[in-house]
Amino acid sequence: MSKYAAFDNETALDYIKSLGQFFAEDAQLSCYEFGDGNLNLVFRIEDQANNSIILKQALPYARCVGESWPLTLDRARIEALVLQQHGSVCPAHTASVLHHDSNLAVTILEDLGHLAILRSELIAGRTFDNLGYDVANYLATTSFYHSDFYLDPQEKKAQVQTFTNPELCAITEDLFFDDPYRDCERNNFPSALTEQVMQLRQNKALLCVVARLKAKFLSSPQTLLHGDVHTGSIFVGAKQTKLIDPEFGFFGPIGFDIGSFIGNLLLNYCAQNGRVKEPPKRRDLHSYLLNTISTCLQQFEQQWHTLSQKHTRDHALQAAGYIDSFLQEVLQDAMGYCGTELVRRTIGLAHVADIADIADESQRLLVQKQTLQLGEQLILNAKSCRSTDDFYQLIISFVH
Amino acid sequence: MSKYAAFDNETALDYIKSLGQFFAEDAQLSCYEFGDGNLNLVFRIEDQANNSIILKQALPYARCVGESWPLTLDRARIEALVLQQHGSVCPAHTASVLHHDSNLAVTILEDLGHLAILRSELIAGRTFDNLGYDVANYLATTSFYHSDFYLDPQEKKAQVQTFTNPELCAITEDLFFDDPYRDCERNNFPSALTEQVMQLRQNKALLCVVARLKAKFLSSPQTLLHGDVHTGSIFVGAKQTKLIDPEFGFFGPIGFDIGSFIGNLLLNYCAQNGRVKEPPKRRDLHSYLLNTISTCLQQFEQQWHTLSQKHTRDHALQAAGYIDSFLQEVLQDAMGYCGTELVRRTIGLAHVADIADIADESQRLLVQKQTLQLGEQLILNAKSCRSTDDFYQLIISFVH
Repeated sequence: MSKYAAFDNETALDYIKSLGQFFAEDAQLSCYEFGDGNLNLVFRIEDQANNSIILKQALPYARCVGESWPLTLDRARIEALVLQQHGSVCPAHTASVLHHDSNLAVTILEDLGHLAILRSELIAGRTFDNLGYDVANYLATTSFYHSDFYLDPQEKKAQVQTFTNPELCAITEDLFFDDPYRDCERNNFPSALTEQVMQLRQNKALLCVVARLKAKFLSSPQTLLHGDVHTGSIFVGAKQTKLIDPEFGFFGPIGFDIGSFIGNLLLNYCAQNGRVKEPPKRRDLHSYLLNTISTCLQQFEQQWHTLSQKHTRDHALQAAGYIDSFLQEVLQDAMGYCGTELVRRTIGLAHVADIADIADESQRLLVQKQTLQLGEQLILNAKSCRSTDDFYQLIISFVH
Repeated sequence: MSKYAAFDNETALDYIKSLGQFFAEDAQLSCYEFGDGNLNLVFRIEDQANNSIILKQALPYARCVGESWPLTLDRARIEALVLQQHGSVCPAHTASVLHHDSNLAVTILEDLGHLAILRSELIAGRTFDNLGYDVANYLATTSFYHSDFYLDPQEKKAQVQTFTNPELCAITEDLFFDDPYRDCERNNFPSALTEQVMQLRQNKALLCVVARLKAKFLSSPQTLLHGDVHTGSIFVGAKQTKLIDPEFGFFGPIGFDIGSFIGNLLLNYCAQNGRVKEPPKRRDLHSYLLNTISTCLQQFEQQWHTLSQKHTRDHALQAAGYIDSFLQEVLQDAMGYCGTELVRRTIGLAHVADIADIADESQRLLVQKQTLQLGEQLILNAKSCRSTDDFYQLIISFVH
């Protein structure tokens, strides 16, 4: 059994060579590390013929806002296993795992260096036609095949145990559902937002919905979630969309992932108001983002209908019409979780570059006011959402 | 590590003596086995001064309708642990575990021989004033203290893993939610019920609710359930009520246990129509059962309100008013599960003695028609139940 030690370029290369399966024995290998160094080491290893792989190693701590706290290495196991599970049903949109070693917290992945991280691309105003469709297919396919509609109950219970992820779930539980709604030193927002934040915290109806969303996050193992579908977890190119980094993966409510994804598109939507000065360019980006959201919602629903009609193995869950009420509840959850993503990215610990990098402070503040308000509206209206169109219309009515 | 072997009187006594903690070294012990022999061995061991204990040992198979199938010994571990967990928060109504050995699948329990099994008592027409109140306190207390309102999320996830109970859950999943609603050789009902059964199976609205109830049973680890609260799992006396046999325990929807309990009271209610010829006596029993149901529902709700107000530790779940909507959903689930208990005990594999022992076939059939109809109504109306009074009124309107 290998014992954990953090790699450097040299030991990473030694390790790769010792595996003996990725490069020719006499290959001339080069190696460099390009992770942000806060959570994980990420090495790119390449031979003289430009064959390359990625070696990712989890670090036993996280550094955030200057602070350092211990963080379980078990997240490397979870991440590799989620990628393998999701890859087994949706290889087109899941990064490939080539090798994993839990003791070293090391995963070797296909190199997706020909693609780019979606968040930076959207910030730069670049668009990808297949994005909504691809992400919807990834989310619908992976969530269906790990749900009670498909999995044998005993197999599902075993998987729920395998993917129990208490430490990383605790981060989400705190940052999404607790901190923003009370006085907590981890929160981070400009004082000009204080009044709006105070009003949010006094809105009883809203706090009730947040409680329900948290309860569901805690106790609703509907499927194996990615757990962290923001635009920084998606590699994109003209013809490819690949999900990475599911270290927050666990069995949770289906609506969480799609809600988080749409929330990140909406954060970018609002950010463009503070970024793009030319109205036509802004209109184009806005209309692209809205189309992407609309496509994503429709395709997600459509794909779930198709898969459940063809492949539901549970007798009781085959009941005619049940899938409609099930998906309606998923949508309501998605809308609620989408709202909590907007709120926590605006006033909680972790912000998004889309907004944080807006240089003009007053422009940034206007964006933050908008994301916070939109988040509130999504949360408050979640329970009355009856269709993908309801969801979409609420967004339209707010942003127009 | 002790290796599993089924005890007989002699080896059971040897085992007790080897533990050296229950009786004096020179005690004169007597021992007899009085289990039904189908699932477990149950020995009563007593000394000359009438000190006694119960030794329960799980058998590695279950015998049912002549058939024998293997059944995990792990259920003995689950049963002992659930009793310990429930006993730690509600000792008054939980049988005490004195010792447990998972390898031998043996649990030593306090002797409750001074009490009687509720089902036989109700069949004999005997009543217990505290029943509804006591069972409500047991269910509310054990469910609150093992819910997200109280448990730390990391502790809860660990407990969910500990109490993963796939084999026994599979029995419930099949017998409650699948078999009765389709043609299956395990079902058991008189041919005179066939038309009513066929109508039930064609009722789309009902099948949709059953699907929702099954999905919730599969994926809603709200609390550590007893998992099998029928009137055969309750010891009663004039001043004591004790729950036993939680081998079906797991983390599931709170409404399941209370729904099962009320379902069993209603099975007895309907059975009295075929048992008791004298109208005044029947009226007394009926009114006792309805009062017990009403008390149970009200006290369960009241106790949950009290506990959650005083002891909710989760910040988000403290939101004003959230508990009301949470409990309303628990009630809706309870009503649905209550209905499925009536249906499956009427047309599924396992019947109840309350009805099965009615000698007159035509009388028995009338009772079965009534329990099946009442089960249907409870399932169909579950979603519109808004209060304990709604639940109670639906029962009243049907049985009167």
